[in-house]
Order: sequence, then C-alpha cells, then structure tokens
Amino acid sequence: MNKYLSELAKNIVPYTPGEQPKDKQYIKLNTNENPYPPSKRVLDKISDSCFEDLKLYPDPNSNSLRSALSKYHNVKESNIFVGNGSDEVLAFAFAAFYKDKQICFPSISYSFYPVYCQLYNIKAMKIEMKNLKIDVESFLNKKKGIIIANPNAPTGELLSLKTIEIILKSNTEDVVIIDEAYIDFGGESAISLINKYENLLVVQTFSKSRSLAGMRIGVAYGNELLIDGLNRIKNSFNSYPVDRISQVIAVESIKDDDYFLKVCNNIINTRVTTTKILREKGFDIEESYANFIFAKHSKISGETLYKKLKEKGILVRFFNKAFIDNYVRITIGTKEEMDKLINAIDNIIKD
Amino acid sequence: MNKYLSELAKNIVPYTPGEQPKDKQYIKLNTNENPYPPSKRVLDKISDSCFEDLKLYPDPNSNSLRSALSKYHNVKESNIFVGNGSDEVLAFAFAAFYKDKQICFPSISYSFYPVYCQLYNIKAMKIEMKNLKIDVESFLNKKKGIIIANPNAPTGELLSLKTIEIILKSNTEDVVIIDEAYIDFGGESAISLINKYENLLVVQTFSKSRSLAGMRIGVAYGNELLIDGLNRIKNSFNSYPVDRISQVIAVESIKDDDYFLKVCNNIINTRVTTTKILREKGFDIEESYANFIFAKHSKISGETLYKKLKEKGILVRFFNKAFIDNYVRITIGTKEEMDKLINAIDNIIKD
Repeated sequence: MNKYLSELAKNIVPYTPGEQPKDKQYIKLNTNENPYPPSKRVLDKISDSCFEDLKLYPDPNSNSLRSALSKYHNVKESNIFVGNGSDEVLAFAFAAFYKDKQICFPSISYSFYPVYCQLYNIKAMKIEMKNLKIDVESFLNKKKGIIIANPNAPTGELLSLKTIEIILKSNTEDVVIIDEAYIDFGGESAISLINKYENLLVVQTFSKSRSLAGMRIGVAYGNELLIDGLNRIKNSFNSYPVDRISQVIAVESIKDDDYFLKVCNNIINTRVTTTKILREKGFDIEESYANFIFAKHSKISGETLYKKLKEKGILVRFFNKAFIDNYVRITIGTKEEMDKLINAIDNIIKD
Repeated sequence: MNKYLSELAKNIVPYTPGEQPKDKQYIKLNTNENPYPPSKRVLDKISDSCFEDLKLYPDPNSNSLRSALSKYHNVKESNIFVGNGSDEVLAFAFAAFYKDKQICFPSISYSFYPVYCQLYNIKAMKIEMKNLKIDVESFLNKKKGIIIANPNAPTGELLSLKTIEIILKSNTEDVVIIDEAYIDFGGESAISLINKYENLLVVQTFSKSRSLAGMRIGVAYGNELLIDGLNRIKNSFNSYPVDRISQVIAVESIKDDDYFLKVCNNIINTRVTTTKILREKGFDIEESYANFIFAKHSKISGETLYKKLKEKGILVRFFNKAFIDNYVRITIGTKEEMDKLINAIDNIIKD
C-alpha cells in the first residue's frame, strides 16, 4: 500500500483516455480528433515577437481570446472563461458549483463526469437512457445540478435548443452545464440562452472542430455569477492555466472562419456518407451530430470489431460497459481514411 | 450572495498574482520573470510538422520531455512528472499527499501554499520565521507533511542540501516537498536525494531560469510511489495538461545548456552587483540565491518605495503583511533595467 497518498488519491478511479499506442502507425479513429490540420494562419502567428514574450507570464485572463470570442458569439467578455482544455474547465465547474452536492447526468455519456464526482465528493445520480437516447422527462425538476453533453458522447445524439430550454425552465436553482464539445458538427449552441438563464453554463473546446487538441483550449460561457465561480477556483489552483502560444493560436483560429466552416462541412459530409455505406453493410448506427458515429454490427461484437480493426492498423474506441459493449465509436477521419476503414470492415465481414 | 457556488467556492480566498497592469509600459520587476528570452533553438522547433500535429492530443505523459529530463538530471523517467506549470504540479501534490491532512511550511513563503490548503481541506501549520530565516529546528519530527521553498520566496534564503537532509531524516512518514522554483540561481538541487528518501518530492519550473513563464511547464521528481500519486490526481482532473508546443519547446530548452548557464550566470552577476549598490544606498537586503532580492530601506517604507517606483514606470512587489511590510521584492532584470531602477531609487531618496 502506498502510505503517502491521501484517502482521495488512494480511492479515486482515474479517467481512462483512448489508447495512444506507439507500436506502429495507426489510422486513429478512437479519440475524436479532427483529421485536418488547424488554419495555416495559426502557424504564421508564432512569430519572433511572440517568441521573445515567452519569458513573461501569459495574460492570466486570456483577454485577447475572450475579446475575439465575445465578438464571434455576440456575448460580453465578462460572460466568458478560458481554461487549459475543456476538461480543466469542467473540473473547475464541478468544484465551483457541485462540490459536496448532487448532480444528474445521462448514464451513458462522457466518462470523465463520474471521475470529477469522486474528485469533489459529489453524489452522482445517473439517469438511465431509453434505447440509448437521453430520457429528457427524467431531467425535469431535479433540484440538483445537471450536466448533459450535447451532442452526447459516445452516442452522437443531439438535443434541440427547445429541449434544452424545457430542462432549464424546470431547473433554475442549480447550475445546468451543457457540454458542447461536438456542437459545431451540426448542432445549435445554447450560448444564445445564457442571458435568459443565469444558471446555464455552456462549455466548448478548440480540440475538435478547431483541430487544436494538441493545444488544450477550453471555454465556458455563462452569467457573471458563474464565471466568477470558475475564476475563484482557477485562481486557487493555477493562476495562468493557458499559455501564450495557445492564446495567440486560438485567436487566429477564430479569425479564419472560412477554413473552420470548410473543415466542419467536410466532416459532416464524410459522416453522412460513411453512415450510409456502413448501414448498407449491416450496421445499426445511431443518428450522429458529432465527429464520430456509434455503430454495432448485427453479426460481429464490438470487441471483435475493435480487435480486428486494430490488427489492420485502424484504431476505434470500444467501451467494455453494459448496454454499449456491442458498439464501437468511430471518429470521422478524412475521406481516404474512411475508405480504408470500409475496406477493412469488408474484409472482416468476409472472414 | 451567489447561490450557485459550492461552499468551497464561496469560502476560498484565491491567490493574488503580481499585478499585470496595462495602462503603460513598465519595467516589470514584480513577478520574478526572466529578463532574457528563451533559447533561439526553441523557435526553430515550432516547424511545419509540429503544426500539422496540433490536431492530435499531446502525449498525456510528456514522454520525450521526461526522457530529456531523465538524462539531464540522471534519474529514471519513472521518477519524473510533468504538469502545466509548477503551480499545477503543486496543486496535484497537495491533493495527492495532503488532502484532509496536515502540513507545515514557513510562515513567510510562497503565498499559494495556504490557498491549496483551503482548496483541499488541509490544516496548515505555519512555522514562525526567526529574523526572516527559516527555523529549521522547528521542522524536525513533525509527523505532518512539509513544504519548503528553496530558495525561499520572497526572502531568497537558501537551505543547504545538508540542512534539507536533516529535515528529511527526522520526517520519513509524510511527504516532504522541496519547491525549487529558484534553485538554478545559485542553489544545489535536492533531486540527488530522491533515491535515498522515498518521501521526498522536488518541484521545479521552466518559468524562471529557463525563460518560459509564458508556456507553463512544471516538473516534479520523486520516488515512483509519489509519481503514481500525482498521476492518479492528474488523470482524474485533466489527462492532457501539457500541450504539444510546450513539450517540444521544453525539450529544446534542456538541450541548449550553454545558453541556460549563460542566462543564469548573467542574473547571478546582476544580483550581486545590484545588492552591493543598493546596500551602499542604505538598503538592508537579505542574502539571496534567487532571481530577486528582498530589500528594505532605513528611511523609506516598502509601500512608499513600491508606489514611487510605479510612478516612475518600474513595478516591484510589495506585500502588505505583518513582518514584511517594510520590504519590497525586486526581480533581477537586465543590467540596463537595474541601472534604471538604481537611478529611480536615487531620485526617490533625494526627494
């Protein structure tokens, strides 16, 4: 036994990220990364002058980035918080709003939520799914915190803004977080509701639609009361969580909207095509509004599919969990990567 | 009252970083940043290929960086942990080893320590200083966790490795952290002791001696038991805390040892010269082994000095706290910046 650990560190069961094997080159369709690089404008910005400034601490409040986001989303800078990836933003939010309290979330969703609950002694109430869909009725009048990933992961289900508002109307006393990591692939953001519901926090990331998983930039949008809560925790943990280059890069990414829209459209189109082809090959696929699809085959188990694809140099995500162990989650890659996936699946079906 | 906050978020008193005013250009001698830029090799490394990879998550364990640090310090990679600045590393360490327990530290030291104690419900026992020096006797046989900044901030005092070992020998049951943010400016690191004392964690940063405050890179060295504790917390908070460019830059910084040593020597020399000159002008200055000096004038209060220097465009750090409110902490800048400081002080004394 490791006698040096606190009870927390002893007992916590950490989050397991998707595997990042080093044994050979894989087509990586397992961690919902974007297959396209970020805007070229990003590279040009890392100039000599930016380099000289690396000796100085970054702006602790990411003001230039918040200013760019403020214009882009038409909300006030005071409604915006920036952190070191949306995982950090979520960790701050759980500490700020839910520590030692209770929270509900869908039983099948982002598997980091229950981990934050352990970290901050939060009682997690998992709301059972109905046929892999979020049971919206069961989220009404909870008198507890709520977090919903929209689109949901790993299912890809999208709740409409109207549905989100029904949940908000019946839950006004505790913070409701809408985690929009995948919203840019076909959903409508709830950012437009933050001035109407002061308990709504919308969390987004630059890791998916903006091709910047490597840089760790997450954002929260909400009423000043909520932004204040996030800042109180941030400033008690790490005053400067977002480095200088990340701030510069993120601003440039926001400015190059044409490129951003093109990348999102490419992925949406590839998702539609891939879904259609795989359905024709006997796959049952949830309707997805994210940059991944959640698929099961009538004759091949999720685990077999995962293993056989890995042998063929393609990584997808398999969850060894009740209700979803027949599925694999497949990130939408480039058209070429998807062709290789379909070809590999053809061979697996043939065997 | 903000009804949405957890009790923790309501009650915590966050850390106050040094001011970063935007009203005009100041000579910044208030946040212990390095006045010299990082190694030029760093810039060359942010190449097109690195840029393409930004779409992918960074290595969650910073393996290349840990490998470079392993060779540099002659310790195993398994004895190294990398985080998003040493503040994050310290936050993880407080959670992993001290949560709901007790810890001792010098009453005058890095003011983030008591904040982490609030964040993780740790009982802080502040050991009173003796004439601004750490009272080593009082750190023996504590049967509690211990954290000591070495050199200490804001005093600049250095404990010898022998003294550190005396403390370690009498405290073997709880984790002892030596926070070496400033060790490269004249001290001897305790990294050489981690294989002898399995409860020793040494924390360092790239923000000071390596001119990379803007990039947020912190490191901990210790026995595998302790590294495991840090990883358990990290993986329950944010799996990928250090971004791709930071990892690449940090490796290059380690490789350019000539530049690193030159920068450290420049700062040490400037510190010696500045200390001598200011003492001749009536300042009482603690012997410093860091990139700052802690100084009080026989006739001018710390607050007055801080305010008058700010009027003249020079920022230093003033702490409005018992025992040290006659002092200012002055970061060692370039020789030119120090000449301007001395000139400004001459004028203040004259008035």
